[in-house]
Amino acid sequence: MINLLARADALDTADPLAGYRDQFLAPDEFDVVSYLDGNSLGRPLIATAALMGTFIREQWGGRLIRGWTDSWMEWPLQLGDRLGSVALGAGPGQVAIADSTTVLLYKLARAALAGSPGRKRVLLDTDNFPTDRYVLEGIAAEQGLELVWITVDPAAGIHPAQVADAIDEHTALVLFSHVAYRSGWLADVAEINRIAHEAGALTMWDLSHSVGSVPIHLDDWGVDLAVGCTYKYLNGGPGAPAFAYLRRGLQEVLRQPIQGWMGHRASFEMGAGYEPAPGSRALLSGTPPILAMVPLHANLDMLAAAGIEAVRAKSLLLTGYTLDLADELLAPFGVEVAGPRAPERRGGHVTLRKPGFQALLEPLWAAGVIPDYRRPDGLRIGPAPLSTSFGEVYRGLSALRDLLEK
Amino acid sequence: MINLLARADALDTADPLAGYRDQFLAPDEFDVVSYLDGNSLGRPLIATAALMGTFIREQWGGRLIRGWTDSWMEWPLQLGDRLGSVALGAGPGQVAIADSTTVLLYKLARAALAGSPGRKRVLLDTDNFPTDRYVLEGIAAEQGLELVWITVDPAAGIHPAQVADAIDEHTALVLFSHVAYRSGWLADVAEINRIAHEAGALTMWDLSHSVGSVPIHLDDWGVDLAVGCTYKYLNGGPGAPAFAYLRRGLQEVLRQPIQGWMGHRASFEMGAGYEPAPGSRALLSGTPPILAMVPLHANLDMLAAAGIEAVRAKSLLLTGYTLDLADELLAPFGVEVAGPRAPERRGGHVTLRKPGFQALLEPLWAAGVIPDYRRPDGLRIGPAPLSTSFGEVYRGLSALRDLLEK
Repeated sequence: MINLLARADALDTADPLAGYRDQFLAPDEFDVVSYLDGNSLGRPLIATAALMGTFIREQWGGRLIRGWTDSWMEWPLQLGDRLGSVALGAGPGQVAIADSTTVLLYKLARAALAGSPGRKRVLLDTDNFPTDRYVLEGIAAEQGLELVWITVDPAAGIHPAQVADAIDEHTALVLFSHVAYRSGWLADVAEINRIAHEAGALTMWDLSHSVGSVPIHLDDWGVDLAVGCTYKYLNGGPGAPAFAYLRRGLQEVLRQPIQGWMGHRASFEMGAGYEPAPGSRALLSGTPPILAMVPLHANLDMLAAAGIEAVRAKSLLLTGYTLDLADELLAPFGVEVAGPRAPERRGGHVTLRKPGFQALLEPLWAAGVIPDYRRPDGLRIGPAPLSTSFGEVYRGLSALRDLLEK
Repeated sequence: MINLLARADALDTADPLAGYRDQFLAPDEFDVVSYLDGNSLGRPLIATAALMGTFIREQWGGRLIRGWTDSWMEWPLQLGDRLGSVALGAGPGQVAIADSTTVLLYKLARAALAGSPGRKRVLLDTDNFPTDRYVLEGIAAEQGLELVWITVDPAAGIHPAQVADAIDEHTALVLFSHVAYRSGWLADVAEINRIAHEAGALTMWDLSHSVGSVPIHLDDWGVDLAVGCTYKYLNGGPGAPAFAYLRRGLQEVLRQPIQGWMGHRASFEMGAGYEPAPGSRALLSGTPPILAMVPLHANLDMLAAAGIEAVRAKSLLLTGYTLDLADELLAPFGVEVAGPRAPERRGGHVTLRKPGFQALLEPLWAAGVIPDYRRPDGLRIGPAPLSTSFGEVYRGLSALRDLLEK
């Protein structure tokens, strides 16, 4: 254990991103010793609190309705483009910030399916995040589609060979998560896209668990559609708006079904008949959630400054160190690693498994250690690279070890 | 004019709600002489700015993921119930805060139509807010429904007799706005509901332009479904989340189509197969927009303290005074009142019309006077009762008069 602690110190000393930790809010009354749930809710930046105060006073309070023409009307696409450039590998005009991940997933899936007449199958995996499965189940029931379920090992994820086996000329759409929410498995997006496109299917990726921690190259990978949330590694705040990507070449072809005034070609003409706006603005429906987008400005600045490749490098060190701690401190108590070990298959979090973990959640919280619990027996350790030190991971897993020992 | 100014002073002196004006944020650099656009974007409360700072520091930053079990999971329904009680005349368990008005309108309309098999017509009016029309056009095109358009005078609104003429046994749903966004016409909800129900149709009301300024009695009026926004008279901030009402008796019958994890019976079981939650939770889809709901806490406190009946009483004085100013100061320059004059038909705003109004918008803003412009030739004067003085209305319309004189 002394060795492991010394290693945390050495890793922290050598960490080129260590300085970013000071940019996060740590309230005076902060009782958190080790926050390991950056994969569920990212911490707020000091700049976010300041920016929100300024926004409420100066923009909402001072500019009032003029804010819409000043800049707010452009925020969904400007922030979308910025996100595309900083984290998604997406050229301009393809990303919009809006709604929730669930609603955007619905909109894009409906658009994709309406654009694939004659094809009645959707390929997805049994261990995708619940909302992804539920949304598609709802659409399938309404439209008489067949959902083709690929069974994956919950401790792993989707393999290209499984997709190749299950896909056929009736497949309209494949939907997977880039990083599996449970195991942290990092899918081979480019290869799965290649297989899907060979069969003539469209591809949709849920990026919620990868965006801001794993480099994404939507354009290069040939992704057709993607969605994701901004409240995990992007630190957007609880229930922050989501984002959608629709590849430029599909924008004139695919139409999302919730025709609202903000997706209209000319929102303020208020005329008869919906005419979709060109480009990614047609992904919008209702009034954009401006107030809730304020944090994104600060967060994208920080991510742009740090660089997603540097974030990934630290993330791999953090998850590697987590695996070592698990092996040395926790395995003796029967804790298993329920996810990939190979760096090229690891997302930003590590899942540990042991029957009875649920009972440890309360004492862990009481000790100021906050991992993420997933039924029935999983603890997810998600050390967000920009806000988490190696020492923090050590303190968290040591506390877990101490509880297991009791 | 001296007489009108003296009347403003007298009305302000006698105003029992005058003290609430001091609870709104007025930044040092505030350049606004007269804000007459409360019907488009309500002003922020001082308490909102404080509450947001506290929330970011203590709840998001301090409690982190624990906030979900502390209270956030209940916010959409708790705030919904509170809104129901303070402003909607809705008993508990029927209102949820979520999404945008457009998305909720889509969800409820789809639910209503799926629950009305065999009926293929939807009744709506040509002058409803664009998003209401566009959403229904999209659904109708997909599902082969017939939209039956009632043509209304844009300076008035929907009459019960028009509904009675147009409705029949094929009508599944009628959709109208409680207060017409353009003219400010206040519809007779109870009577239109009676007519619709007699024909066996469901009723949906868009409350965006009435909530927080006109008393609403959803339960007593027999409304089936309703939606509305919280960024106008409820001061929720730009793009604040919306609300939906689904009458208790319909909750086991009507199902909205966007099946997300937060509408599931047990969100964190993450099991196979969507099972809707009981009650109004099934209206939710994605992760609730918690950060964006923070202002609502402060705003509902204020509205509860002031009381919606007192707000309406002041609103009628404000719009009555606006009409007098229009008649005495503006009519000589060819300005017409393009909306109802009778108090029982007036919503919270007054619409003035004159060709060429668009050109006055910039000089009005330059003079610190901010009304709302609606193409082609309308200025909406929307004095929010809790934040607007009679003197402010006087200053605004006097400035308009001066510009017309030039």
